[in-house]
Amino acid sequence: MNGTRRLRELENEEALHRLGTVPFGRVVFSQNAMPAIRPVNHFLDRGAVIIRTHLGSMLLRSVGVIVAYEADEIDPHTRLGWSVIITGRARLVLEADEARRYEEMLRPWIDGPMNQLIRIRPGMITGFELVDAREATAT
Amino acid sequence: MNGTRRLRELENEEALHRLGTVPFGRVVFSQNAMPAIRPVNHFLDRGAVIIRTHLGSMLLRSVGVIVAYEADEIDPHTRLGWSVIITGRARLVLEADEARRYEEMLRPWIDGPMNQLIRIRPGMITGFELVDAREATAT
Repeated sequence: MNGTRRLRELENEEALHRLGTVPFGRVVFSQNAMPAIRPVNHFLDRGAVIIRTHLGSMLLRSVGVIVAYEADEIDPHTRLGWSVIITGRARLVLEADEARRYEEMLRPWIDGPMNQLIRIRPGMITGFELVDAREATAT
Repeated sequence: MNGTRRLRELENEEALHRLGTVPFGRVVFSQNAMPAIRPVNHFLDRGAVIIRTHLGSMLLRSVGVIVAYEADEIDPHTRLGWSVIITGRARLVLEADEARRYEEMLRPWIDGPMNQLIRIRPGMITGFELVDAREATAT
């Protein structure tokens, strides 16, 4: 399988669409000036990534700062798939109506109170797909 | 499925072992003071994560600095699985013998010259498992 894959860039719209098709991804932020990353589940609302966390979580340190959010779907056998990364400022969802709606849509992974919602509006979107090089040449 | 999962911490040895059972993960580093993340394939050599990249890749910006490396295996349906994060300094592999051996073991994902090997020795290891809360209580 070596040497038959190529990287294809995804358009912003296509990249965001793919991110919305998977239930989880990873938030990337700084913690005490060190890189930190945590997997969470998400969904997409009008182009923004919505995640949910519990009070006291270290994820709350990402609020107000620029974070990256990554989701991917890569086949461990063929190594084909895609990865999408958005970069933007993480903000608490403070609108009560929105918060209620999001809480309905986003079931937390873990037991316990999960009453903080975070919205990440993408400032920058990077997406690529690993495709079979022979197929890529054919299209 | 809501409310039946619990987070269980993994011991360092177990966490590293799991990371070694999957073929790829994500390097987290800073780029122009912004968080950056890129999926790559890896393997484990004597407790260190070895990744491979091509000359000119933005991953080379991670060399010499503290990075995080994350790998996970989370079932999108049951949401059960694990995630392991190591944090440590990324260094180029400069020993010719090691480099030759690693190049044999680590097939790049993409066509083209991939002649930079990076080693990340974990300074800190964080691992957790999402387990069914009922099973966790039973054991």
